[in-house]
Amino acid sequence: MLGNFKYSNPTRLYFGDDALSFLPQELSNYGPRVMLTYGGGSIKRNGIYDEVIRCLREAGKEVFEDPGVMSNPTVTKLYEGCSIARENDVDLILAVGGGSTIDYAKAVSVSAWCDGDPWEKYYLRMEEPDNRIIPVGSVLTMVGTGSEMNGGSVITNHEQMRKIGHVFGDNVMPKFSILNPKYTFTVPRYQMVAGIYDIFNHICEQYFSGEDDNTSDYLSEALMKSVVHASRIAVKDPENYEARSNLMWCATWALNTLIAKGKTTDWEVHMIGQAVGAYTDATHGMTLAAVSLPYYRHILPYGEAKFARFAGEVWGVRTEEMTQREAAEAGLKALEDWMREIGVVMSVKELGVTEDMLEGIADATFLLQGGYKVLTRDEVIAILRESLNA
Amino acid sequence: MLGNFKYSNPTRLYFGDDALSFLPQELSNYGPRVMLTYGGGSIKRNGIYDEVIRCLREAGKEVFEDPGVMSNPTVTKLYEGCSIARENDVDLILAVGGGSTIDYAKAVSVSAWCDGDPWEKYYLRMEEPDNRIIPVGSVLTMVGTGSEMNGGSVITNHEQMRKIGHVFGDNVMPKFSILNPKYTFTVPRYQMVAGIYDIFNHICEQYFSGEDDNTSDYLSEALMKSVVHASRIAVKDPENYEARSNLMWCATWALNTLIAKGKTTDWEVHMIGQAVGAYTDATHGMTLAAVSLPYYRHILPYGEAKFARFAGEVWGVRTEEMTQREAAEAGLKALEDWMREIGVVMSVKELGVTEDMLEGIADATFLLQGGYKVLTRDEVIAILRESLNA
Repeated sequence: MLGNFKYSNPTRLYFGDDALSFLPQELSNYGPRVMLTYGGGSIKRNGIYDEVIRCLREAGKEVFEDPGVMSNPTVTKLYEGCSIARENDVDLILAVGGGSTIDYAKAVSVSAWCDGDPWEKYYLRMEEPDNRIIPVGSVLTMVGTGSEMNGGSVITNHEQMRKIGHVFGDNVMPKFSILNPKYTFTVPRYQMVAGIYDIFNHICEQYFSGEDDNTSDYLSEALMKSVVHASRIAVKDPENYEARSNLMWCATWALNTLIAKGKTTDWEVHMIGQAVGAYTDATHGMTLAAVSLPYYRHILPYGEAKFARFAGEVWGVRTEEMTQREAAEAGLKALEDWMREIGVVMSVKELGVTEDMLEGIADATFLLQGGYKVLTRDEVIAILRESLNA
Repeated sequence: MLGNFKYSNPTRLYFGDDALSFLPQELSNYGPRVMLTYGGGSIKRNGIYDEVIRCLREAGKEVFEDPGVMSNPTVTKLYEGCSIARENDVDLILAVGGGSTIDYAKAVSVSAWCDGDPWEKYYLRMEEPDNRIIPVGSVLTMVGTGSEMNGGSVITNHEQMRKIGHVFGDNVMPKFSILNPKYTFTVPRYQMVAGIYDIFNHICEQYFSGEDDNTSDYLSEALMKSVVHASRIAVKDPENYEARSNLMWCATWALNTLIAKGKTTDWEVHMIGQAVGAYTDATHGMTLAAVSLPYYRHILPYGEAKFARFAGEVWGVRTEEMTQREAAEAGLKALEDWMREIGVVMSVKELGVTEDMLEGIADATFLLQGGYKVLTRDEVIAILRESLNA
């Protein structure tokens, strides 16, 4: 059942190797005070920083720098960004980086003028913004999260051992995003592969839910096939423009609300993975990879028909002679083979998880209702332990 | 190659059986003077007119009626609509109907305040709007054209024997569209089937172009499979809400620019079909159906690999033991079987075309560059003759 929904996605995208040439025109829509948000300095090494600064200077903007966004942006960093934004009364936050930087920019955009503690209001209590929102634009340099065209924003509180994502509405989505596939060429292989798995898992989280045969299922299969096809080229030849283009484009559409229409959506892999991230600070995509197979094997009996469809439609497995259970298992085997082929992390052990952390990670894991099976805390521990021993 | 492009689609969609409940909130964004545009009166018989009028009255709007939009809106009707819009200085055009009504509303929106003849400026010379544009909103009652979320607008000039479509930019796209699948239940079977084929052909026109294996190809296959699946249910059970929902949703995504990214796009079936329409005033989707198979058989040798892929990916044909040519032909055979199954028109003869019209229809056919083969006038005549004798 597609059901009842609203679809609205106002983010303007500029895609291609000339995408940055549209930045000046976008900048002209905003006032003169721009907060420039970025990560650890890779954009200074690869020249993107200089290009963006030149655009800002030529547009006559006053630039307030906000560097040092970490891969799992913290609530401490958020408070710091809010001060910069508020004290300088910025008109635009320009995020240059990957999903972490853009997620963080959205967090600052709703938090800077918030009364009270934004961590409590927007992450613990998940309230909707009722204060001034500072517009965000982005220049994407790493692919995976889809943050460039959605309202998602994940923030980590290490003190509370919580990593929480809030999906804001279209008033918080970036006003524009600059998508140049070449900017992703210099991303280290580990990060590239983690990003690829992040894309794939975003699709799985929506696909493996509900019992319908609706347009979202078909679109999800299409995106998965395109990701798999492009990933096989990209891992061999990271500077293959076509492959990196398709990965970038799939990432955007994997998580901009389209393929969630009519689906209850699962997101339990993200819940477990984010709890692992809160404990280890590991790369997001790799936390998802490390818990995926134990999780999917665990829920397979509750969504057998869909896993069987997954085998045939996404992986081209000939399922006619198989039982439904055999077909479903063949789908997970094909997924596993591809994960090993592109080289994702298959065990949380590799991410620094130890046996004594399992209870704590399980406590930090939200148990959601949208998938084929609502997990218990014991099941989360069993899944984590299976990953630990993989 | 995905290449360089801009993606921006600001239309807000309200989907589902409660979609009209969002109309009041949308109306509050516009001034008090609303032009209500609709077709031949079916919306009065099925009650949609009364519901919309109630919303408009409750919102305190002054309504200027503009009924009688025909299935192929004419330039004469366009001039009439421009007078109504201009003389009453309307703040919003609310189109209630199918693609023809919404196409026409967009034409009025750019033409009402145009200096000079809008037919010449916007259709013959294909200029971009440089005058005031009146915002358009829509309540969709018939599915197929995708006009609810794009800038397309097709207008017919019977005197000049020309039916021409202009695809305007996002400033002309509807600001909002109300999509209630139940509103399509009362569409006559012939119109429903024509709409289904229109959706399918929109996808084909984008898919059968270029030589890449990019995300748009995968998404196109997904939409085709969803259309075929839902169509088989809808022709047996027109009030199947789920099937009509998926058809409605596929129609929107088949022609809102997404699956054209990275494709040269063909549109030659539309060019021939529209020329047939200019001569016969036949239902749009049926003109496309009647010329499709002769056209695709004709270009098959120039795009053999793609037609072979089409056979395997869209229709599930087992192509491993076949030559590429055999696989390609099996794809068209599967398409033909489905067309006969849902009951589209297979010959232009049935639409009123006679041998003596062929030369004139060929003269009225634009010859485009984006497909696998640029046709000659003689080839258009041969294709039309094959359809005539089918």
